[in-house]
Amino acid sequence: MSTAFDRLPQVRFAGPDSTDPFALRHYDANCQVLGRSMADWLRPAVAYWHSFVGNGGDPFGAPTLERPWFAAADPMEGARMKADAAFAFMERLGLPFFCFHDRDVAPEGATLRESNDRLDRMLEVVQAHMQRSGIRLLWGTANLFSHPRYMAGAATNPDPEVFAFAAGQVKHVLEATHRLGGENYVLWGGREGYDTLLNTDLAREDAQLGRFLKLVVEHKHRIGFRGTILIEPKPMEPTKHQYDRDVATVYGFLARHGLLGEVKVNIEANHATLAGHSFEHEIATAAALGILGSLDMNRGDPQNGWDTDQFPNNAQDLSLAMLEVLRAGGLGTGGINFDAKIRRQSIDPEDLLQAHLGGLDCCAQALLIAARILQDGTLDRLRAERYAGWEGATGKAILAGEMDLAALAARAEAAGAGPAPRSGRQEALERLAARFA
Amino acid sequence: MSTAFDRLPQVRFAGPDSTDPFALRHYDANCQVLGRSMADWLRPAVAYWHSFVGNGGDPFGAPTLERPWFAAADPMEGARMKADAAFAFMERLGLPFFCFHDRDVAPEGATLRESNDRLDRMLEVVQAHMQRSGIRLLWGTANLFSHPRYMAGAATNPDPEVFAFAAGQVKHVLEATHRLGGENYVLWGGREGYDTLLNTDLAREDAQLGRFLKLVVEHKHRIGFRGTILIEPKPMEPTKHQYDRDVATVYGFLARHGLLGEVKVNIEANHATLAGHSFEHEIATAAALGILGSLDMNRGDPQNGWDTDQFPNNAQDLSLAMLEVLRAGGLGTGGINFDAKIRRQSIDPEDLLQAHLGGLDCCAQALLIAARILQDGTLDRLRAERYAGWEGATGKAILAGEMDLAALAARAEAAGAGPAPRSGRQEALERLAARFA
Amino acid sequence: MSTAFDRLPQVRFAGPDSTDPFALRHYDANCQVLGRSMADWLRPAVAYWHSFVGNGGDPFGAPTLERPWFAAADPMEGARMKADAAFAFMERLGLPFFCFHDRDVAPEGATLRESNDRLDRMLEVVQAHMQRSGIRLLWGTANLFSHPRYMAGAATNPDPEVFAFAAGQVKHVLEATHRLGGENYVLWGGREGYDTLLNTDLAREDAQLGRFLKLVVEHKHRIGFRGTILIEPKPMEPTKHQYDRDVATVYGFLARHGLLGEVKVNIEANHATLAGHSFEHEIATAAALGILGSLDMNRGDPQNGWDTDQFPNNAQDLSLAMLEVLRAGGLGTGGINFDAKIRRQSIDPEDLLQAHLGGLDCCAQALLIAARILQDGTLDRLRAERYAGWEGATGKAILAGEMDLAALAARAEAAGAGPAPRSGRQEALERLAARFA
Amino acid sequence: MSTAFDRLPQVRFAGPDSTDPFALRHYDANCQVLGRSMADWLRPAVAYWHSFVGNGGDPFGAPTLERPWFAAADPMEGARMKADAAFAFMERLGLPFFCFHDRDVAPEGATLRESNDRLDRMLEVVQAHMQRSGIRLLWGTANLFSHPRYMAGAATNPDPEVFAFAAGQVKHVLEATHRLGGENYVLWGGREGYDTLLNTDLAREDAQLGRFLKLVVEHKHRIGFRGTILIEPKPMEPTKHQYDRDVATVYGFLARHGLLGEVKVNIEANHATLAGHSFEHEIATAAALGILGSLDMNRGDPQNGWDTDQFPNNAQDLSLAMLEVLRAGGLGTGGINFDAKIRRQSIDPEDLLQAHLGGLDCCAQALLIAARILQDGTLDRLRAERYAGWEGATGKAILAGEMDLAALAARAEAAGAGPAPRSGRQEALERLAARFA
Repeated sequence: MSTAFDRLPQVRFAGPDSTDPFALRHYDANCQVLGRSMADWLRPAVAYWHSFVGNGGDPFGAPTLERPWFAAADPMEGARMKADAAFAFMERLGLPFFCFHDRDVAPEGATLRESNDRLDRMLEVVQAHMQRSGIRLLWGTANLFSHPRYMAGAATNPDPEVFAFAAGQVKHVLEATHRLGGENYVLWGGREGYDTLLNTDLAREDAQLGRFLKLVVEHKHRIGFRGTILIEPKPMEPTKHQYDRDVATVYGFLARHGLLGEVKVNIEANHATLAGHSFEHEIATAAALGILGSLDMNRGDPQNGWDTDQFPNNAQDLSLAMLEVLRAGGLGTGGINFDAKIRRQSIDPEDLLQAHLGGLDCCAQALLIAARILQDGTLDRLRAERYAGWEGATGKAILAGEMDLAALAARAEAAGAGPAPRSGRQEALERLAARFA
Repeated sequence: MSTAFDRLPQVRFAGPDSTDPFALRHYDANCQVLGRSMADWLRPAVAYWHSFVGNGGDPFGAPTLERPWFAAADPMEGARMKADAAFAFMERLGLPFFCFHDRDVAPEGATLRESNDRLDRMLEVVQAHMQRSGIRLLWGTANLFSHPRYMAGAATNPDPEVFAFAAGQVKHVLEATHRLGGENYVLWGGREGYDTLLNTDLAREDAQLGRFLKLVVEHKHRIGFRGTILIEPKPMEPTKHQYDRDVATVYGFLARHGLLGEVKVNIEANHATLAGHSFEHEIATAAALGILGSLDMNRGDPQNGWDTDQFPNNAQDLSLAMLEVLRAGGLGTGGINFDAKIRRQSIDPEDLLQAHLGGLDCCAQALLIAARILQDGTLDRLRAERYAGWEGATGKAILAGEMDLAALAARAEAAGAGPAPRSGRQEALERLAARFA
Repeated sequence: MSTAFDRLPQVRFAGPDSTDPFALRHYDANCQVLGRSMADWLRPAVAYWHSFVGNGGDPFGAPTLERPWFAAADPMEGARMKADAAFAFMERLGLPFFCFHDRDVAPEGATLRESNDRLDRMLEVVQAHMQRSGIRLLWGTANLFSHPRYMAGAATNPDPEVFAFAAGQVKHVLEATHRLGGENYVLWGGREGYDTLLNTDLAREDAQLGRFLKLVVEHKHRIGFRGTILIEPKPMEPTKHQYDRDVATVYGFLARHGLLGEVKVNIEANHATLAGHSFEHEIATAAALGILGSLDMNRGDPQNGWDTDQFPNNAQDLSLAMLEVLRAGGLGTGGINFDAKIRRQSIDPEDLLQAHLGGLDCCAQALLIAARILQDGTLDRLRAERYAGWEGATGKAILAGEMDLAALAARAEAAGAGPAPRSGRQEALERLAARFA
Repeated sequence: MSTAFDRLPQVRFAGPDSTDPFALRHYDANCQVLGRSMADWLRPAVAYWHSFVGNGGDPFGAPTLERPWFAAADPMEGARMKADAAFAFMERLGLPFFCFHDRDVAPEGATLRESNDRLDRMLEVVQAHMQRSGIRLLWGTANLFSHPRYMAGAATNPDPEVFAFAAGQVKHVLEATHRLGGENYVLWGGREGYDTLLNTDLAREDAQLGRFLKLVVEHKHRIGFRGTILIEPKPMEPTKHQYDRDVATVYGFLARHGLLGEVKVNIEANHATLAGHSFEHEIATAAALGILGSLDMNRGDPQNGWDTDQFPNNAQDLSLAMLEVLRAGGLGTGGINFDAKIRRQSIDPEDLLQAHLGGLDCCAQALLIAARILQDGTLDRLRAERYAGWEGATGKAILAGEMDLAALAARAEAAGAGPAPRSGRQEALERLAARFA
């Protein structure tokens, strides 16, 4: 049986100078970088959703991608064909992880029970593939946004029965993720937001969302799942305004609902830029706030205002994000999920592979650049020197709360003309960082 | 002595049909709206900064506004002329409040002590005008962004001596605000952010900023200031990325540093839209989170990406913001500060008055529209009906934590096909709200 | 047979004070405005596409709208049900016009010939409805963007056979539009652009697009169609970059290909704002350049960066666009097509009606505001006075080419300090315009 | 006398592996690239404006950069000090070109005549430096935007006396540019636009702008200037909406006023992105339309919405722009002007040099990447193959106008199911292009 990807070759690492289009040029899983293998730093994953469910349709056009499983008469048979093809593709590509939503793997049934049954049956197929191939589950998640029942939100729905339905769905997928050895469980609240404030009660929906997340955390502990619970921020789309806007917003939400220490963030590059942040800003913020969990790797189009989810291809850009990952000591149970999709015109099976090869090489290059920056040490040394005053007596006393406003004012008054400004050296630092690209 | 505004007439309310360009058509201070006077709801204020210091310069062009005090040989004499003119203008306009930064009122001196002395001397002039005119101080603030010493931040500066200088400046202005009977004290962290992550340590700067705010709150209590401490969010400009990005970000910051209950937000319309939010979103969010403090009234240009600070002039748009203010029960010690500036080409003294008349009438109309929406009651009734399920037994049990994930899953499994979606009725509600405009 | 809209009442005009949700409050077809009826100024139309084909699906979710014709086993039977329902809706609403794409009306067949046959058969049904109801066709258009064959463009496709296919499709729809008495024919080049410059030859695609449009114009004359050929600009989406970006870009294209005088523009509000323009800017620009044709009425979300196609609901905003329409003397053969869609959650049949009522009343109010501005005359008088110098001898001599650079320089040198700036009076004019809202 | 830059070393090329911060790593003026020297391809220039007049001020803060000439008591003496320092800097940097506005070089006088005299005197100083150093003038331009007289535009001012003043200024600078051997003359219409449509007559201002440009072109021919007249597009800022929005808009303007063949464009990267285009799009568009003139090199901040004018530092990004330059055969009389400014915190003299070194190396790397892409040939071959059909008989017949709509329709009808779509291969091409970075 054709899996659409049968003719694709097995991918291998061939070095930077290779011109073989099917070889990796920079991603060498076992290459040691700052004491860890590249695979350990990146923990890269294929996204079941975009790669095997995406069909090339967009709001203005019909599907363009032809995959045998789309045409299957029986949806469960289609799901099986899809799983076979997915693992065929993933094995050729050779990444250690994958990620899935429940509805990627098995079609929704008429009832929650039927949906759960279908999922369980298909996950047996998936599990067999996992055992055979050694490919592991980075994270699982429940799709709480595609079905019309969720059109006004899942946890934040005005109807508590929808909340209950979502709870049932998450319970099932969380347990399945646990069963499959998943290392994280992700919640993306695509419909947890509003289309118009006119029909929306923000305080009420916030309480609902907090309660929902607490239920998930409690259940995680109950079943002994030791992976990480992750929220994936996004500012908008499909809603006008989503509640999990960005890392700082999620932090405030977790603090409000007593969930710090229990939940981290899965940061997506394109969601970061839609929210008006650079990817590296969101990573650095999460690291500073202690909630850095995992990454969804892709990029937006700097001239378009929606979620284009393109594969990354500029290693120098990405090196600034990787630098924050390295500084944070890596991603822990997290990894780098290629939450990216091929363009609507990329209709050849080879296109999906080229996209992943390009994205993977880009991440590897970015990692290498970031490692060179750290190994050189100049950038971090200059940064530390900039704040050197805070390591002195006054700086420490201020931060320790040993000087009140009056004491500080007295010091400033005694200082006369005040401190002289010092150069921020931005261009020199940018040039320095570029040197390692 | 000419104050530039001597020829402007005294403004009066003349009703919606008036064609007198110097009359107010909608703002009638004593008009009763939902049990309170219009003036009590809006508590409008003139911004000393934009109105009397702004000179029409922009990044591409020289000043265009000629005010006698700009040309004064002695800066303190100029400051006096400016104060006289400001109160002449404000008395003609007839608003109850004004707001100022220290550097608006008096020129910076060579040392902090000289700056403070100058400020004190000028505030005596201001205080005399206040007593004579009855115009009160809505809030004071220290300018921690214009001087080169603050180019890399005030509280978040890499140099602790700059932190100390800022502390000394804030201490002085906070005390002055207290002395003048100010009802709030505002902190806008225009330079508390970064231009490049390459030279920035986010965690360290967050600790500095938290410490600074705690010092201010402690000092407030020490001196017995009973007004509200307010943070004014802005996402960017002048920095690439400001820490006090939006209401949700400030909430997280306050939670992290144990400052909830002590500090609220001063929300600016143009800052909201620069951050990707509607003005009403930010107000509703602050109200839901319990940190709604005051408003900076203006608008951005929907096609331009910087802080244009224009006067509002679309009452229907603004009515959605006013609706949130009314629902929140008003602004407490806060008010509506016209943090708006005339365009560079608006060089006639009359232009400043027309701008304020237009802005004030727009706010008054928006208030009246919002009041009509609430009095009609349909909108809020439909919203409440939408969430009615949460007032039922299941809804209450869920929020009370009486159902765990397993119980909810069991309920959803028993429910068969699941709940039917119900219309969000967005267009009907938009049409309903528009009916009152 | 149910048409989904059977239970909706017949809409009537009931005046501004009506609280009947099914009554129009401002749109009174026969109301005289500046010497023409409201219906004649606006020439409003229902969009077959959004209203009867849209199903509530979005990139993150399944369809939510249930219409009987979506479920029809036979697609031609579904098309018939849809046509019946569409005219049932349109007759209840009472607008004089509608607009369609070929694929809205009849399903695509396996070949161009079959598609054309299907369209012809369905257009007989439509024509019968038109004759019975008196509803006329504002414009027709061919869908050259949904089918995979057009994924890389229609006229600008790298494959000339796709160009030929598109030509065949347009020929057929243009003739059908002519047959049905359509007053315009529109071309929207949704896929005429690129996703990446890497595979794109701009000069070549420009030549193709120019050739295509010339063929359409030639054919129009050949068949005696006397309506207007219109291009609808849009900057992006679905492509990264569309060639017909905005009015000015289309003007340049028409000039380059010798098509000025033959082709005008159909301006959409949301496309204007996506391109970084206000709607009124695009209308005023088209009027100034002599290519104002027709309007697609909707609005975008000011905080979201994609084509939300919402119904307009702020009459004051829209009055500035209507002012440009009035100044231009109206839209000629054009009209106002509600190219707007209800939100995904608006699943009740009534929602579609409320949306149109709101949009229609908004346009009517905007028209009335604009008419009051013109009747008052102050705004236009002040504008004319601002340019009065150009009506003097020097101004006329300059524009007539009677003064060269040297003569002008001599004049400026003789003028000493140069002309004094005069106030642009922006805030006063904004306040003036707001007075009529 | 100190020139602020005396302590900076002479810059030299030291190769990619150099760690000397004052050495160039990629820009080697004489390095041969595709048959031309790097210097000949890039023709790089220093911008007098940003580099020697910029003072670090921004809308929220005072100047931060201290240059001796800012403090000069006599403005002409300051201008002389500035010129000395500028050439000292430029000689250390070693670029072949510079660019200036009249007001960069000499201070405005009380009258046009005095301003012209001052300029002439200062240009003698400049010319001496040019002769001594061998540094040439890439282009000159007149500042028609900073002075209040131009607040409502220069050519598009409502007062014809302002038009005359601008004409006088341009005449003088055009002649000076000719005298100094300048290779181009640039017009940037920063104030040629509007702040509000309410006071603006678009058609009238378009006629004025067209007339102005014609006068400039006539005068150019009269004085025998053989350089190129360039318009620099920008969409907004300082105005709400500028007329010379982007390349396509300028093309339309030139066509309308009969100026094609006489005027080209100077494309700025940050202006391109503000207008919603990639830099490479604008270059490719100008090349396709035959109006590619010169480049202003910088970059915007992808998360900020104003003109940040930063130095470029991502060679892979820039390589796509350079690819279009190479394909166009170079820039003719144009070059690459670093219209970029150091950040406000970059207060050390060294910062200005580091910024230029980084920018220059980035351009050189981008050129080398683009050259490798072209030498490899795969990308252009794949692109050509994509359009191969248009080189066949049908394609040629279509473009030659030999097939009308009916003939094409007949062909499409005969073709049955129509052409099959072919992959656009975007990800593979992106990966291919990235290989050369």
